[in-house]
Amino acid sequence: MIPVEHTIDGIRKALEPHRHRGSIGFVPTMGALHAGHARLIEVAREQCKPVVVSIFVNPLQFDQPEDFERYQRNLESDLALAANSGAQMVFAPSAPEMYPSQAETFVEVQGLTQHFCGASRPGHFRGVATVVAKLFHIIQPDVALFGEKDAQQLAVIERMVLNLNFPVAIVAVPTVREPDGLALSSRNARLAPDERRTAVCLYHALTRARELIHAGERDSHTIREQAGALLLQPGVQIDYFDVADPKTMCPVSTAGPPVYVMGAIRVGATRLIDNLLCR
Amino acid sequence: MIPVEHTIDGIRKALEPHRHRGSIGFVPTMGALHAGHARLIEVAREQCKPVVVSIFVNPLQFDQPEDFERYQRNLESDLALAANSGAQMVFAPSAPEMYPSQAETFVEVQGLTQHFCGASRPGHFRGVATVVAKLFHIIQPDVALFGEKDAQQLAVIERMVLNLNFPVAIVAVPTVREPDGLALSSRNARLAPDERRTAVCLYHALTRARELIHAGERDSHTIREQAGALLLQPGVQIDYFDVADPKTMCPVSTAGPPVYVMGAIRVGATRLIDNLLCR
Repeated sequence: MIPVEHTIDGIRKALEPHRHRGSIGFVPTMGALHAGHARLIEVAREQCKPVVVSIFVNPLQFDQPEDFERYQRNLESDLALAANSGAQMVFAPSAPEMYPSQAETFVEVQGLTQHFCGASRPGHFRGVATVVAKLFHIIQPDVALFGEKDAQQLAVIERMVLNLNFPVAIVAVPTVREPDGLALSSRNARLAPDERRTAVCLYHALTRARELIHAGERDSHTIREQAGALLLQPGVQIDYFDVADPKTMCPVSTAGPPVYVMGAIRVGATRLIDNLLCR
Repeated sequence: MIPVEHTIDGIRKALEPHRHRGSIGFVPTMGALHAGHARLIEVAREQCKPVVVSIFVNPLQFDQPEDFERYQRNLESDLALAANSGAQMVFAPSAPEMYPSQAETFVEVQGLTQHFCGASRPGHFRGVATVVAKLFHIIQPDVALFGEKDAQQLAVIERMVLNLNFPVAIVAVPTVREPDGLALSSRNARLAPDERRTAVCLYHALTRARELIHAGERDSHTIREQAGALLLQPGVQIDYFDVADPKTMCPVSTAGPPVYVMGAIRVGATRLIDNLLCR
């Protein structure tokens, strides 16, 4: 069995013998692990030992309490997946362990968080940046790995590390997809069978947008209209679907590569996001 | 001569051989070093080696551009004082080294910063917390020392370290005073001789407030009126003079110990702060 630490003191003690060798790898997660997380752990173990996986559903980053409540929790299967993927240690703290009193200190990344998920989910990225700062101080990893599916989150973490001089190297890992193209997400498990079939429309729309850009289309409005039409499905609500500058994470009117095409939709009650980088 | 590093890479390399021994001491300063800073360094060297002093006038924590411009800078005499007090290394970065692009990531401590200097100087403590977080990530000290003269700043740093799980022990060092009681401050050098004579009224008022509390007075309004009367001097403007809960840094109406008596005044163009803890 993979060792699990539930306390901050416990994980710090467990990591003590491994410090100063410059190769602690860290994969922060909210649990409900899937093949996307497995990929993060596999990439980590190629360059790091030990690889530490944290499992913590962070209340601070949920803008909707019911989304927090509904978020899947299954420690046993998560431990099995982490171990099988090559992790050496799991940190699974409780909420009171991470927030013994009301959180009063926040890390905020401005600019990058004005649009897209930052606009749709007030306080979300502040919660993400704050908990990642805490986890970095607890684990003190040399390398931390994040998935490209959450492109804006990745940009926020990279900016935070750069601006605050965290001594941590950030590694971005490509999105893992189902055979039909749907990006893996813990939230996919909530989809009913018909919703699951519908959900792939987000990938189709992003792929269409990328084709248009690669074919020379530069007008973001046209791209939004033509590719976004694939999202007009029963049961689908569009949160955003747009073209963004990877440096600023702001919408651009001219889609000159490199740009992200990014989308967030709600399929029934489940919010899904995805993106493609067009070089 | 004491070694000085001007770059982040430079100080990290210089500290590399000292890491993992658990005894890097750190005294962050804005330069214009005086006997108060010397005390911080002396306390540091009793428990740490090496002791690193940073000298950086942090633009992010100045709410008034002219205050930033006027802030004294004299690296040569600062280096001599740091060396004579027992420091082994100085980190003196430029502003572009610390902020190569516009700062977009901020550390904010709420609650503790609502009153007193937090209210008088918008953005000040956000600037302090942000630069201290950066410096902690650059130096990675085991121990960092701060003066009690800046009681609210000390509370903010302690809260930040606690909330964000920084692996740094914070040591508070008592205020060093002139023979007449005036708290040492880099800003004292700006006082004209008559202003210098007037400035001690802040210490007198705080001492009077403490006497009242120790004599059993519990009404903050009475304390403010009676002790604050000593601040009614020509050329003195009162910013605040009040009784505060050390845990929340909020004003209290009942002065039941432990409480801080805290004051900020402007003597001519120079802003001075001081406090006494009444146990």
